[in-house]
Amino acid sequence: MSFPVRWIGSRPGLTALQDGAVMHEALAIDIGGTKVEAAVVDAEGRILPGTRFRGPTGAAATREELVASILQTAERSVAAHGGPVSGVGIGSAGPIGRADGTVSPINLPRLADFPVVAELRRFTSGPVELRLDGTCIALAEHWQGALRGTENSMGIVVSTGIGGGIILGSRLVPGTSGNAGHLGQMQLRRREPDAVGTPWTLEGIASGTATVAWASAQGWTGTTGEQLGADYATGTEIAVRAVRRSAAAVGEALCSITTLLDLERVAIGGGFSRVSPDYLDLVQEAATSAALHAYARELRVVPAGLDADGPLIGAAALVLAD
Amino acid sequence: MSFPVRWIGSRPGLTALQDGAVMHEALAIDIGGTKVEAAVVDAEGRILPGTRFRGPTGAAATREELVASILQTAERSVAAHGGPVSGVGIGSAGPIGRADGTVSPINLPRLADFPVVAELRRFTSGPVELRLDGTCIALAEHWQGALRGTENSMGIVVSTGIGGGIILGSRLVPGTSGNAGHLGQMQLRRREPDAVGTPWTLEGIASGTATVAWASAQGWTGTTGEQLGADYATGTEIAVRAVRRSAAAVGEALCSITTLLDLERVAIGGGFSRVSPDYLDLVQEAATSAALHAYARELRVVPAGLDADGPLIGAAALVLAD
Repeated sequence: MSFPVRWIGSRPGLTALQDGAVMHEALAIDIGGTKVEAAVVDAEGRILPGTRFRGPTGAAATREELVASILQTAERSVAAHGGPVSGVGIGSAGPIGRADGTVSPINLPRLADFPVVAELRRFTSGPVELRLDGTCIALAEHWQGALRGTENSMGIVVSTGIGGGIILGSRLVPGTSGNAGHLGQMQLRRREPDAVGTPWTLEGIASGTATVAWASAQGWTGTTGEQLGADYATGTEIAVRAVRRSAAAVGEALCSITTLLDLERVAIGGGFSRVSPDYLDLVQEAATSAALHAYARELRVVPAGLDADGPLIGAAALVLAD
Repeated sequence: MSFPVRWIGSRPGLTALQDGAVMHEALAIDIGGTKVEAAVVDAEGRILPGTRFRGPTGAAATREELVASILQTAERSVAAHGGPVSGVGIGSAGPIGRADGTVSPINLPRLADFPVVAELRRFTSGPVELRLDGTCIALAEHWQGALRGTENSMGIVVSTGIGGGIILGSRLVPGTSGNAGHLGQMQLRRREPDAVGTPWTLEGIASGTATVAWASAQGWTGTTGEQLGADYATGTEIAVRAVRRSAAAVGEALCSITTLLDLERVAIGGGFSRVSPDYLDLVQEAATSAALHAYARELRVVPAGLDADGPLIGAAALVLAD
């Protein structure tokens, strides 16, 4: 049967280079607000032992320090690997400029417009690909984790911030400038002009940071997500309300996203998603009960399969998975 | 350069059938809450003169009457055309069941689970394709209208309801069950348990119906969108507030969607989008000013190019455009 408007499923695997060689390993880089990580990843999505390194970043560092940290971390990983890498995959905190290969992480203002793709070409004669870190996480989960086999899904992280990436028709959604997946800045409430932060956005309501701040404003005396989790476990009222409030907002946002995109599954990782053993159940419950259409009640919320390895595995997948 | 995670642009054109024949014209059907339309559309997206027919639907009709109206309207169109059609494209009010080829329009409860794909096979030996009406509108605008040349965009309708369709990577986004594009049921406000209707959803806030109802609740004495437009033109305070309120909600929703999907353009049609000459400007302003990321400020809001012809042209595109 002819099916002219079609989506073609993809299967990860080896990708032939133009000269006929086959890619075996990629250098993967993950640029974040507090650290940069690098590792060499093989075609089955395994981080090769001894190749994973970490360098500092942070808003206080100079541009020169940030650039040096990124390049040295990459260098150490490649040196530990010993052989050539057949490509470089980069995941970065956003926003990014996909067209010109630059990154401008919002938490690293001094790194603005850093031409990371051009700078990392020195490590390979193969392809160099850049995507948002959330996009890489979704790709990793789709390649080797909890989103395997899905056609339409998201991978998201609930941590100090909230971000994610989108798979539709078994393919990554990069967006026009490479920034698709920024669900944390979706707006769920009326904007309050005098508010501190952005308590009308998903991230401003429901991230670990926002949830701890909200609990503090209610009179809770702890200061960390871990303490909040401990107090949730003992039934402390404010902690219970705070965790439920976060999960409800994440669930409601996922309901709106699923209503719009007709997704089948979302994988959730990140430290704050483990604040309580039932956090994902609370998210599922909120997403299902908010749904106005039957198809949106089909969304399944599952734990991420790779979690802390996701950003690197997904960055590698940019050049290893097809 | 190798670019393993890629989106391939599409160009509309003739599509070869499996047996080597070329498709020239399609029967297009648009099933809505008050009427069904049918026409024969050629490979350039033109509705062939004399082939467009309309039949009644409506919540009061029996299932037999609804089915008869759909089949007779299709029959008249094919008979007026005279020759065979090389495929049938169907757009329908949602939800739909893409896998089993059924429609269950929310405003036509008696038509629930109608196997429209199987029933319309009688009109062609070629493909029969079913998608949401909003999806067809987006496809039509991408094929022949205001979204031509875009990679990432939406076509939406603001009328008695609010719906739309999504183009990503120059391809339609169907969603798991065919229901992607239901932006009207995205939730923008806190849910109010005792509310009449769904005033926490985009459609419940901003559709023509909801906006007239809101103005009435404020003391406005008119009853139609046309009257609201006339009173807006003369500066009647409640009418001005009502129109601005609708445009602001549409703009804020489009901002959230663009933050998530990194879109470049949205085309807006539907009767209520013409309630005032500056309605789209108000939507653009709201979308831009709500954006928290620079890339989301790049969204351009434009008028739909095909409007009332969009659903039929898009349904035809399901089998004519590649």
